[in-house]
This record gives sequence, structure tokens and C-alpha cells, in this order.
Amino acid sequence: YGYLASYRIDAIGEEFGRAVLWRPYLLGVVFKSSGQSPLVSQPMRGPYHLKDMQRTARRMRVPLVLPEGFPMATIAAARAFYWMEEQDPRRAKDLAKALYRAAFAQGRNIPTAETVAEVGKEVGIDPAALQAGIGTPAVKERVKAETDTAIAQGVFGSPFFLIDGEPFWGNDRLDDVREWLKTGGW
Amino acid sequence: YGYLASYRIDAIGEEFGRAVLWRPYLLGVVFKSSGQSPLVSQPMRGPYHLKDMQRTARRMRVPLVLPEGFPMATIAAARAFYWMEEQDPRRAKDLAKALYRAAFAQGRNIPTAETVAEVGKEVGIDPAALQAGIGTPAVKERVKAETDTAIAQGVFGSPFFLIDGEPFWGNDRLDDVREWLKTGGW
Repeated sequence: YGYLASYRIDAIGEEFGRAVLWRPYLLGVVFKSSGQSPLVSQPMRGPYHLKDMQRTARRMRVPLVLPEGFPMATIAAARAFYWMEEQDPRRAKDLAKALYRAAFAQGRNIPTAETVAEVGKEVGIDPAALQAGIGTPAVKERVKAETDTAIAQGVFGSPFFLIDGEPFWGNDRLDDVREWLKTGGW
Repeated sequence: YGYLASYRIDAIGEEFGRAVLWRPYLLGVVFKSSGQSPLVSQPMRGPYHLKDMQRTARRMRVPLVLPEGFPMATIAAARAFYWMEEQDPRRAKDLAKALYRAAFAQGRNIPTAETVAEVGKEVGIDPAALQAGIGTPAVKERVKAETDTAIAQGVFGSPFFLIDGEPFWGNDRLDDVREWLKTGGW
């Protein structure tokens, strides 16, 4: 659902002159903290949501496949984002979108620094530098800290949107997000 | 969320000439079968969803309060529905809506046959007959059987909509439900 929302959220922010700050974090750690498990692995809810994701993607007219081994490790991808963001926030967002699309449009599993760097190369990022960056202690700490921050802000799933502190959870809340920005809240 | 959907679902059916068959069941039993707990009692998810329910109600311009002791026992209400439905399906739906509104617009807890019969009286149903009806073995069995049927159909929450077998979960899927009926699916 985060992948699906990645097609809309920046355009919604732009429509209302609001910056959209992406903050990757470790969903597995968040799930542990709120006593949850990955959606697709849950009885009854899992099969339904697979169907709903595919149906939602068709309605949005965007491709959707689940990568082999989903749910997959996203720690290398999260680290890559913050490494890139320190140098160029716009390119970090391009990288995040490329990673989402590699996984959920092309079905590629991207659990390692190597596989993440391959995707980075496709959007013009030097793969050797990216792979080295993913391994730096500062970036590892950053992902931990952002995950703690997410939990402290009440984030328990993905995608999760905060507008001046107002929380919205789910791709299916993007119309509410848009209306909230348009009206200033209700 | 089921209460919120109760304001829209029949009008959506009517718009496309489709009958809407209400099927109350025991959500607590369904939760046990899918390994879940009541939403409002869950860490992080609970506080968020309380906020989201209230925000959604404000956007829909309908009243919403949570009754004392929520989540509450709904077995008497479910039995009352099926008792009434055997005599008059239309009045059964009126009763269900009155029960939803007693609980979530007026904040009344309606866990017993007595409290359910009081609400029934307000929509013109003889309270003594309703209270006796709630206690009949056939109606008790009916609620059990409908709950088993719901689980067998993959229902894991409320509100849950089935259109010719296609499942939609959540008040936030009603726009999809409407589009599905309008287009015949996608």
C-alpha cells in the first residue's frame, strides 16, 4: 500500500504548496512495538488484502506484483535513502520511488546493499558509492533513530501521513489527506 | 465503522437496483477465529482509529459517540434482528439501524434483551414480543450459524460487503463498492 501511495502523495503536496518529507523506517520493528505481524501473513486478512491491493492497483491503473519472498528486508533500502538524502533530498526521493517500483512493479527482491545499489545505478547513482554509503555507521544509526521517532509519533503501519501532527493511515486515506490540506481540517 | 456504513449502504444498493441483505454476526467470535482483538483496545492502532472514526463521522456529518463499555455485547441485538427478519425483513433493517443509532449516536449501551427491546419499542416493535423472541432457541442457533457462514466466506471485520462473492472490507471501501456496482468490476 505504501508503494501505491508513492504514485500520489507528492502530487497532492504540490497541489497545496506543501513539502512532502519521506521518512523510511523499519516496519518490522514498528510491528513488534504495536504487537502486529505482516498483513499478508495473517489468516483471512492476508488473502483479502492481497486481493484488495491488486484491485486497488488496477483501479489506479498502476502495475503491482509482489516480489519473491515478500515481506522482504528493507533495511538496506532505508539506509540507502538517508545516505542519498544527506547529499540531495530530491534524488533520495527518486531513489525511493525507483526501489518501490523495482520491488512492486518489477517483482525484484531488493534485500541487500548490492541489489539496492543496482536499482540506484538505474537512476544515475554511483553503485559503489551507494553500497559503501549503506554500510556507514551514521546511516545505520539514522535508520534506527527514524524508526524510534516513527513509533514515538504513533506510527503503526505504512503508508502513514502526518499533516501538522494530524495522523492518516493507509493509501485509502489519501482522499482525506487531500481534503484536509484543501480545507485546513474539519 | 459499521455504524457509519449503515448510513450509506442501502442507498448505494438502491442506486444500482441491487438488494442489500444485512447479515449481523458475532464479531468477537470472528476475531477469535482470525487471531484478532477489538480495534479500540489495541496499542497505537486503538487511539488512532478512535480519532479516525470521529474524523470520518464529522466528514460524513453524522453524530458519533462510543457507548459506555464499548466494545459491548451485541448478541441480543443480533438475535433481535433475525427474529424480526423472519416476520418482516424491512422492519428488521429499521431495527438494526435504530440499534446502531442508539449505541453510536446516543451512546446507549444495549447489551441485554431488555435494552434491545427498549430500542425496538421506539421503532414500533412490541417490546414483550421482541424480548421473548430474543430468547428462542431457533434465533440463538441462527446467530451461531450466520457467524459460521461469515467466517466460511472469509469475513474478518465489520463492515464487510460481498458483491456476488467479491469482498470489500471497511467503511472506507464504500466508494469502491459503488464503483464496482456501477462498472461491473475491474
